[in-house]
Amino acid sequence: MRTIDWVDGKIRIIDQTRLPAEEVVLYLSTVGELAEAISSLRVRGAPALGVAGALGIALAAKKAKEKGEDVGEAISEAASVLASTRPTAVNLEWGIERVKEAYDPGRPQAIDELIERARAMVAEDEEINRLIGEVGADLLTEGSRVLTHCNAGALACVAHGTAVSVVEVGHRRGLIEGVTATETRPLLQGSRLTAWELKRIGVPHRITIDSGAAGLIASGEIDVVVTGADRIAANGDVANKVGTYPLALAAQASGVPFIVAAPVSTIDLETPNGEAIPIELRSASEVIEVNGALIAPKDTQVYNPAFDVTPASLVSAIVTELGVVRPGVDDLRAFVESLKETEKATFSGEEEARELT
Amino acid sequence: MRTIDWVDGKIRIIDQTRLPAEEVVLYLSTVGELAEAISSLRVRGAPALGVAGALGIALAAKKAKEKGEDVGEAISEAASVLASTRPTAVNLEWGIERVKEAYDPGRPQAIDELIERARAMVAEDEEINRLIGEVGADLLTEGSRVLTHCNAGALACVAHGTAVSVVEVGHRRGLIEGVTATETRPLLQGSRLTAWELKRIGVPHRITIDSGAAGLIASGEIDVVVTGADRIAANGDVANKVGTYPLALAAQASGVPFIVAAPVSTIDLETPNGEAIPIELRSASEVIEVNGALIAPKDTQVYNPAFDVTPASLVSAIVTELGVVRPGVDDLRAFVESLKETEKATFSGEEEARELT
Repeated sequence: MRTIDWVDGKIRIIDQTRLPAEEVVLYLSTVGELAEAISSLRVRGAPALGVAGALGIALAAKKAKEKGEDVGEAISEAASVLASTRPTAVNLEWGIERVKEAYDPGRPQAIDELIERARAMVAEDEEINRLIGEVGADLLTEGSRVLTHCNAGALACVAHGTAVSVVEVGHRRGLIEGVTATETRPLLQGSRLTAWELKRIGVPHRITIDSGAAGLIASGEIDVVVTGADRIAANGDVANKVGTYPLALAAQASGVPFIVAAPVSTIDLETPNGEAIPIELRSASEVIEVNGALIAPKDTQVYNPAFDVTPASLVSAIVTELGVVRPGVDDLRAFVESLKETEKATFSGEEEARELT
Repeated sequence: MRTIDWVDGKIRIIDQTRLPAEEVVLYLSTVGELAEAISSLRVRGAPALGVAGALGIALAAKKAKEKGEDVGEAISEAASVLASTRPTAVNLEWGIERVKEAYDPGRPQAIDELIERARAMVAEDEEINRLIGEVGADLLTEGSRVLTHCNAGALACVAHGTAVSVVEVGHRRGLIEGVTATETRPLLQGSRLTAWELKRIGVPHRITIDSGAAGLIASGEIDVVVTGADRIAANGDVANKVGTYPLALAAQASGVPFIVAAPVSTIDLETPNGEAIPIELRSASEVIEVNGALIAPKDTQVYNPAFDVTPASLVSAIVTELGVVRPGVDDLRAFVESLKETEKATFSGEEEARELT
């Protein structure tokens, strides 16, 4: 099941705030309901947010037409409301704009076309993630014991995910012995979401504390580390969930391959290297409060970065939907440029090449 | 106040599981109560466990005598019960053996002598930790930004601590700009205990998630990493709280000194290297339950090691109460052997050289 989709004129999502305790499916029928779901992280993850923005615009247009209201105005208002829910999420705005810009009030089938465009984006995201899994699984050998970090799975996307897609396809091919997922403090996406996804797709797995991973790698119990990426610089430096860098250090120290799985759109050629990637600092309360209880003396200062940067020299391979690129061996810019034509052919439903920045 | 001591025929501890919310003092009057306190980490930390073991044997002997039971049998039973609570903790067994071997049923004052021996160990531990701070602070330069892991402070010992003693003395000498303490999942000794201690001794500090430390070191914001140790093998490999090894990797990658502060008794010459150190695996519930709520799907498997091993090649210096030893430069066995005479002079209240295994 897709974790976000357009079903019977509504947006269907899995409420991620209720996981792993409960699997609650929500059908969102207004822009207000969607905005609330985004703000409270019921739907989250960069690719999923892009799709949510796109579906939200389609929903606004459909509702306005049904009520006989001004569709253009409804789209503008929805765009503004949705974009303000997560102001730093570039994918959200990208998804909103991509559908919004396609609205042509002069065309009789304008609303249906918006819905079709948004639904095509859902399908495209699913296909990208499926392909990442296929490409990445080619790098696995039989009996692979995989370690992954944070949630780079279906819940962050429409389906499959990135790192988890590699595991899913590897499992289908009989290559996976088991997966260790780090819990990923402070928000515990690994234990809450990745463990739930691995259970759902039937992959043997366990979780560990973030700081348990390095010793596990050193002990010879991990064959490959696979993570997602939030942004990949032109030189191959990778910004991903905080804690990725020490995993890459541990992998290198033990000669274990460190693989990054991400769509080509994650490669940002305008960012020359990791130093140019701003690191979002998040609130102290995420660290210092657990289930409403203080875990440190009141007013303790907290350093809570959302990401860290893994230098390209530690990255064995970047797995994309369109092939593998190896920092230090391959040139990322040349790789991306060479793909633009291929990509047009791959997603024939799309009229233009995907934006890559 | 000492964090563990012999008071009015009982063992007084600060219940570390209640910090930082409450400062609860417990008086343990049976070996069973002490074993429970050790198992559930109400008292923890290598040196404190050594003292706890010693006091536990004294307590068992005293109780048996009061009840008219066989003292030798009670001591043996207590030794077995206490040693099995934390199998990796070499200090615990050392403290137990040191008092146990002194029992001479033929002497009329045998029980009082056992108690005196255990109490001397409490005083000795306090002095050792004070000295570790003095020796370690000599390695600090002005404006030091220190990173530490877990709790190697007063709460882990009788007073002062090991890594935190270095910070405490450095702070008194005006050398410390600030300290970053990792929270140390799953039991959060860093945020709960180290932050509490640093606040108590007035050192500017902040906490971070364990996986935030590596990126912080890479960003140039840390001048030195100082941790404690649970066991140091003859070749200089260091077993310490899980998560120490990735910090050492990150320190080496950025050219930051990685210092281990520990009493000489932590050096275990009978353990040739890190591979020979058993790693205690703890219960899944520590990871999967937070404040009573499940943070992963029910029945998720958990890998929850208490320690990891940092190879000697990543350790810049080991700071002991009797000087600094550098793995790879100095021979640990020669260092320890050379100290036996010095030690006799230093702790004049002791009749024999300390056993070092």
